[in-house]
Amino acid sequence: MYVIAVYDVAAERTVKMLKLCRRYLHWIQNSVFEGEITEVKLKELIFEAKQIMDEDYDSFMIFKNRHKNWLEKEIIGKEKSQIDQFL
Amino acid sequence: MYVIAVYDVAAERTVKMLKLCRRYLHWIQNSVFEGEITEVKLKELIFEAKQIMDEDYDSFMIFKNRHKNWLEKEIIGKEKSQIDQFL
Repeated sequence: MYVIAVYDVAAERTVKMLKLCRRYLHWIQNSVFEGEITEVKLKELIFEAKQIMDEDYDSFMIFKNRHKNWLEKEIIGKEKSQIDQFL
Repeated sequence: MYVIAVYDVAAERTVKMLKLCRRYLHWIQNSVFEGEITEVKLKELIFEAKQIMDEDYDSFMIFKNRHKNWLEKEIIGKEKSQIDQFL
């Protein structure tokens, strides 16, 4: 399936969440990721995210699509992942 | 159509972007919004966003779905929009 993932966690946990999400998905901007992922891999990602997060304060949202083609992306302004991917 | 919108703008423009997006969509968390919107209204939103943004630095991403049912949402941790909607 094709997912968009967005996290909102306390500052001290952002680096860990960023590194975790990057192992499973493509970074788009800030705390936003997208990519094709299997159900099993997504469960792994969520399991690992829960080890990092404080679930009383942080949140992690996953928008799931059966197929990438069902989702059309439009970017206004700077497409950050293109300029930052080699940093 | 059903959209998810995420902006990433300089700090001095976040309040304007937040207010703008709230007029068209439902706020979920941070700079993330979702909602049903017509093609015309979406064009309006994008037009207004461009007045606020510096397109060389800021970005505004729209993920479009033909139908809400094609998109399944899963939230881990705190669902921020529920606790913050009356603030």
